[in-house]
Amino acid sequence: MATEPMPTDPTTESTAAAATTKNRKEPAYLFSEKQVAEKSELARRFLDNRTRLNENVHKADNLLVKRFYLLDHNTYLEGALPAKYKELMGLAASACLRCDDCIYYHAIQSYRLGGTRAEQEEAINVALVVGGSIVIPHIRRAYELLTELYG
Amino acid sequence: MATEPMPTDPTTESTAAAATTKNRKEPAYLFSEKQVAEKSELARRFLDNRTRLNENVHKADNLLVKRFYLLDHNTYLEGALPAKYKELMGLAASACLRCDDCIYYHAIQSYRLGGTRAEQEEAINVALVVGGSIVIPHIRRAYELLTELYG
Amino acid sequence: MATEPMPTDPTTESTAAAATTKNRKEPAYLFSEKQVAEKSELARRFLDNRTRLNENVHKADNLLVKRFYLLDHNTYLEGALPAKYKELMGLAASACLRCDDCIYYHAIQSYRLGGTRAEQEEAINVALVVGGSIVIPHIRRAYELLTELYG
Amino acid sequence: MATEPMPTDPTTESTAAAATTKNRKEPAYLFSEKQVAEKSELARRFLDNRTRLNENVHKADNLLVKRFYLLDHNTYLEGALPAKYKELMGLAASACLRCDDCIYYHAIQSYRLGGTRAEQEEAINVALVVGGSIVIPHIRRAYELLTELYG
Amino acid sequence: MATEPMPTDPTTESTAAAATTKNRKEPAYLFSEKQVAEKSELARRFLDNRTRLNENVHKADNLLVKRFYLLDHNTYLEGALPAKYKELMGLAASACLRCDDCIYYHAIQSYRLGGTRAEQEEAINVALVVGGSIVIPHIRRAYELLTELYG
Amino acid sequence: MATEPMPTDPTTESTAAAATTKNRKEPAYLFSEKQVAEKSELARRFLDNRTRLNENVHKADNLLVKRFYLLDHNTYLEGALPAKYKELMGLAASACLRCDDCIYYHAIQSYRLGGTRAEQEEAINVALVVGGSIVIPHIRRAYELLTELYG
Repeated sequence: MATEPMPTDPTTESTAAAATTKNRKEPAYLFSEKQVAEKSELARRFLDNRTRLNENVHKADNLLVKRFYLLDHNTYLEGALPAKYKELMGLAASACLRCDDCIYYHAIQSYRLGGTRAEQEEAINVALVVGGSIVIPHIRRAYELLTELYG
Repeated sequence: MATEPMPTDPTTESTAAAATTKNRKEPAYLFSEKQVAEKSELARRFLDNRTRLNENVHKADNLLVKRFYLLDHNTYLEGALPAKYKELMGLAASACLRCDDCIYYHAIQSYRLGGTRAEQEEAINVALVVGGSIVIPHIRRAYELLTELYG
Repeated sequence: MATEPMPTDPTTESTAAAATTKNRKEPAYLFSEKQVAEKSELARRFLDNRTRLNENVHKADNLLVKRFYLLDHNTYLEGALPAKYKELMGLAASACLRCDDCIYYHAIQSYRLGGTRAEQEEAINVALVVGGSIVIPHIRRAYELLTELYG
Repeated sequence: MATEPMPTDPTTESTAAAATTKNRKEPAYLFSEKQVAEKSELARRFLDNRTRLNENVHKADNLLVKRFYLLDHNTYLEGALPAKYKELMGLAASACLRCDDCIYYHAIQSYRLGGTRAEQEEAINVALVVGGSIVIPHIRRAYELLTELYG
Repeated sequence: MATEPMPTDPTTESTAAAATTKNRKEPAYLFSEKQVAEKSELARRFLDNRTRLNENVHKADNLLVKRFYLLDHNTYLEGALPAKYKELMGLAASACLRCDDCIYYHAIQSYRLGGTRAEQEEAINVALVVGGSIVIPHIRRAYELLTELYG
Repeated sequence: MATEPMPTDPTTESTAAAATTKNRKEPAYLFSEKQVAEKSELARRFLDNRTRLNENVHKADNLLVKRFYLLDHNTYLEGALPAKYKELMGLAASACLRCDDCIYYHAIQSYRLGGTRAEQEEAINVALVVGGSIVIPHIRRAYELLTELYG
């Protein structure tokens, strides 16, 4: 749904941009994507495919897509909620919306931030109960990844 | 959406559990999953993959997942509605929610309970009209299975 | 998703139209909408509002909308599946897609075709398990209607 | 799904911000929101309620929400596609996702940009066929608004 | 949601059918499906698979499915809105409903009707902002196709 | 999607039931529902309406519904994840699935468990970015509640 933008003028906006940059706090990952890929073949294939496909998106250099990617990235930074819990929320949201790629992404991120298997399973349980049995095929695939990551 | 549980106490709940066990009436299948797999290569691949992936889920032994699986199973038992019609409802629901695995599962179950091809097509028609043209790619794949099962 | 139409020519199509007209079998309702409205205040308000809003749609006389309405109507006629079960499928589909107006419509139709309260509850149960806890607020409202219709 | 941001550094990003500001081209509205509100009571109530609720959002001054609002606003500016067609796309997307408030918003915007009733009906038809009969209750309410706007 | 059909009698309906036939205006494609398939391997595989699967659907000769296909086809003909914009609306609707096959179909149709890459990207942007980050995996795959079609 | 239940026999199942009872750990609420209702008129109306509608559901005494309610309740108990974070996950899931009643419920629960306004806003931000602009109307209504609860 389109919205009128909140009152901003160029000055305000660049102030806001500065604020974002200042407050941005990248989470401290326990594992790199490379380490995850070495641990799990499923993760490796997912990450490789995502990198390959993102290249087309990057080349297209569509400004709105770029800003959406940035906004998306900023959503999961450390904040009032620790990054780990936000990734687990992203996992729950992705599972109840039934997006396998998104589930893979957030499960990997949660793992990289020290989330345990039990924590991931509980986030998935929220999605299962909220979203119902149509979530089950996605849970099966998620458990396959979890087994490789934590097994 | 979380809900307060309906008033239960350990006694009530075990009574309820007993009731469930008592009323549980497994439907009488005309065909086993094995027979379905022999008839249709698509069904065989689906069933094999599902079995393989479920192993990880079973090993994880997550209590909430186990209870959800049980609840799910109990939903389709013989009751006020014959099991066949409930499976066809599961098929219609799965198709309008666009879950290929779920469509396959319920189409196979409906077949095992004696549902005819015409009945399956009408259940899918409900989903098509309710859910619109985005259901069409799933219908194409469903018809491929139906053709193997009934062809 | 748009689709190329199946091969038709004007002749074929008018044959098809004739066939539809011929095979069309309106279900035998046990109760009229008027009787339902007299029994349940919730049903009455729903039916009145729907009639009022449909007037604008009818006046607009949009050909595609008219044909969709007709297609929709034909989906629930007697066929390989009895109309009652198709309405109950419509109820399950509507509930798992979380459309209150649609739930009301199909619950009323199921009632008019002799569906029992137990049958309606089981159709709703399929939707609850398939669609998860977000279906619960809709179930609460559905049970309010069922209580007025059958209470 | 979270994404790594495309490679940006503070310099690049402020360049991008500047570019956005520069390229931003607000569409030329034929009618103000006030004029729409005077023409249609339904539009007036929608716009008033939205304004009232947005006040809480604005006061909260959540940076990510603000940026999302801005991104959302920028999506519908004049570009490769004329703003009118993007609003009609927003209408089609909103209708097939079944969001009444969003439908109202984009129908009003399309009207303000000179979209005719026939154009709005065709955009809604896309949503009806793509999204199915569960879109119908929303179409009824949309036609009520269209009747006030164009009647 | 089922609806009572708008008041029609056999006469009215055949008049309507005639009107449809008369007003039907197939868009003028710049490229055939064959040309698209020669240009893009992804498009070729999609079109081939769709043709193969549609054969089962056609053989089944289900009247309601046939009429839905026809209605779907008619939705995108030239009308108050040029066919190109309706295909781009179908693209936006498909992307925000996250249906890869539908995205492929409408992206190909938009290309065949002379839509530029920039126009397709803006239609996808509407879907991205309306539908959120879960649309991103689909956008990645859409950009892969766009790169082959326009690259 | 229906699933075969994991291998259970009456004995195993009652063991599992016992385990559930044993491990069940109700969270320690900082505020009762009554206190919340006294603080916020919107919360009061929501809670009253929910109680009123749940009465019909309870009276119906449908076994499957009862078990779903229980399973749902158990999902949000203290576990590997603190209850507060699970309620915030429920909030994020509810918001991206666009269920106002569910949003209200989980926002109230998060408040009762000591969640701060900033934490609730970040959970909602995850839903906004994951689910897109169609979440905005729900966010407006959520912020109205947050303002009453924390204002």
